[in-house]
Amino acid sequence: MATQVIVLNGGSSSGKSGIVRCLQAELREPWLAAAVDALVDALPASMQTSDGGIEFAADGQVNVGSQFRRLEAAWMAGVAAMARAGARIVVDDVFLSGPASQGRWREALDGLDVLWVGVRCDGAVAEGREIARGDRPRGMAAAQAESVHRGVSYDLEVDTTHTESVDCARAIAARVT
Amino acid sequence: MATQVIVLNGGSSSGKSGIVRCLQAELREPWLAAAVDALVDALPASMQTSDGGIEFAADGQVNVGSQFRRLEAAWMAGVAAMARAGARIVVDDVFLSGPASQGRWREALDGLDVLWVGVRCDGAVAEGREIARGDRPRGMAAAQAESVHRGVSYDLEVDTTHTESVDCARAIAARVT
Amino acid sequence: MATQVIVLNGGSSSGKSGIVRCLQAELREPWLAAAVDALVDALPASMQTSDGGIEFAADGQVNVGSQFRRLEAAWMAGVAAMARAGARIVVDDVFLSGPASQGRWREALDGLDVLWVGVRCDGAVAEGREIARGDRPRGMAAAQAESVHRGVSYDLEVDTTHTESVDCARAIAARVT
Amino acid sequence: MATQVIVLNGGSSSGKSGIVRCLQAELREPWLAAAVDALVDALPASMQTSDGGIEFAADGQVNVGSQFRRLEAAWMAGVAAMARAGARIVVDDVFLSGPASQGRWREALDGLDVLWVGVRCDGAVAEGREIARGDRPRGMAAAQAESVHRGVSYDLEVDTTHTESVDCARAIAARVT
Repeated sequence: MATQVIVLNGGSSSGKSGIVRCLQAELREPWLAAAVDALVDALPASMQTSDGGIEFAADGQVNVGSQFRRLEAAWMAGVAAMARAGARIVVDDVFLSGPASQGRWREALDGLDVLWVGVRCDGAVAEGREIARGDRPRGMAAAQAESVHRGVSYDLEVDTTHTESVDCARAIAARVT
Repeated sequence: MATQVIVLNGGSSSGKSGIVRCLQAELREPWLAAAVDALVDALPASMQTSDGGIEFAADGQVNVGSQFRRLEAAWMAGVAAMARAGARIVVDDVFLSGPASQGRWREALDGLDVLWVGVRCDGAVAEGREIARGDRPRGMAAAQAESVHRGVSYDLEVDTTHTESVDCARAIAARVT
Repeated sequence: MATQVIVLNGGSSSGKSGIVRCLQAELREPWLAAAVDALVDALPASMQTSDGGIEFAADGQVNVGSQFRRLEAAWMAGVAAMARAGARIVVDDVFLSGPASQGRWREALDGLDVLWVGVRCDGAVAEGREIARGDRPRGMAAAQAESVHRGVSYDLEVDTTHTESVDCARAIAARVT
Repeated sequence: MATQVIVLNGGSSSGKSGIVRCLQAELREPWLAAAVDALVDALPASMQTSDGGIEFAADGQVNVGSQFRRLEAAWMAGVAAMARAGARIVVDDVFLSGPASQGRWREALDGLDVLWVGVRCDGAVAEGREIARGDRPRGMAAAQAESVHRGVSYDLEVDTTHTESVDCARAIAARVT
């Protein structure tokens, strides 16, 4: 069966979105990107300051509430529906709850052919890249580097510490059927 | 029945995305934005230069091909699934094919309670705003101002020519049940 | 003598940067934009959290310290030098200290032919546009709408409350010699 | 004498702006960034389509005309004036004319204490990063990787091919007096 969804999981500043763009350039057919960052941009601005929403704290912690969880569940259902309607999708997410996050995606994507990919990056290196990009609160990269992978299982892992995004993308593309 | 989806249709630089942000601020519950601009951002970069994709010509014309149409159909199915899963959604689209565009949305959103809103803006005024924003090819605003509304039917029309986004949003919010 | 510098002063969300882009499109020769927003982007990120820097508080207040003032003075000297070297410049600033801000610019631009322009916008309207644009802390527009103009003198004032950016730009362009 | 200006020269996607942000974080005093990208953003939009302006061709070539050169000269004079007024400046430029570009900066910065830094990156690696970032025409990275360094002399060279931005920044910071 042909791969219908690629799910990339990795911490902030691990290089996921760069891999997504390289994957879209590498793969012959058009793949649609579905990034949790785009979901956050689609939320009301007030959800970044309300209790039930999503808070990006000054120390790099990300706290999510029940309202965010409800909209996230609907988003996952929507992404699955896009795949079932024939679009090939690359998901770019941060599993803040580790295996529970993966469980939610497994449920939403039930029956679809999914390639699970872990995007790793050494915490200290990701922290340096966080400073270099300059558009994220400092501390997210270090806080998430290890924790988002704990208890999660993958078909394939790539590591951007010493490998370029385009080479990670090629390794992933080689596993797409 | 409660409104599940608000569909805004209007030409480039008519002020749709500003109305979306004001609507999200006005409405008590969190509404999710689903903008065709975000769909374009989620496509492979190469689709903006390929025959089957979407081309933004220097004269402001927008040409779409079969590959774009296929992914757009999947996106519409996904937006509908998000609404069926309980998220309330504001769609922000440009009906390049007028009533045929509306027909595609009607089919995708079948069974959902939809509020159809036309966002009008005088062509010359939209053209001035296109220059002021500076991030769109010149000519799109004028080319789309009238054409996207032809043959489309609405529950409500707002006009940003002389009315602020926040006031247009209040008029729309008053019709949400 | 030919106008060498146009200085626009107005509160946040009063429409200055849109007027700058329209002015650049209207005026026959190429004019260079020099915006205080670009100065803030050119500062170290840490200056937005340090005592001597510039703080954008959650309530819309902007507080500046001595380090910011020193770099701002050097920036003003640089803008003046660009004009003396033959570039025509449109400055886009927010006179947080009113007449004292204007005094600093007068000193820096000494000997140059300057057109002073006030960009007004009704506070409530600017506040609505602040929500619509969605990329500024709420409260800045209302806090600055009147205060930045108090005690400042202009060659020309425009008001974006009921006048489009492009028409304000035309009125300014008509005064450029 | 204390270093007053750091000039970084390197091809597109060689990692200069990341190094600038890391330098600003590393260095104890606040340094101001002056990037040629910001100059391009400050130009009238029409200069990207006019003969005398700056053209970013689809194949990655960048062509500049006489009007661009005049404004660039004024910008260099302005940057020098900022440094003479006491701001410490990191310039981030692409020497499209190699030693002639360096000559223009030498003349503008005459009498100031300047640290000249070459930012190298293997052409194939830079090309991959250009795809990953997704906001530059493809081909610029490869076209500029070697050519911008030919005939230019430096106090220090860094290479981002295998070294992180933050480590390059530390090497540069160690040379700042």
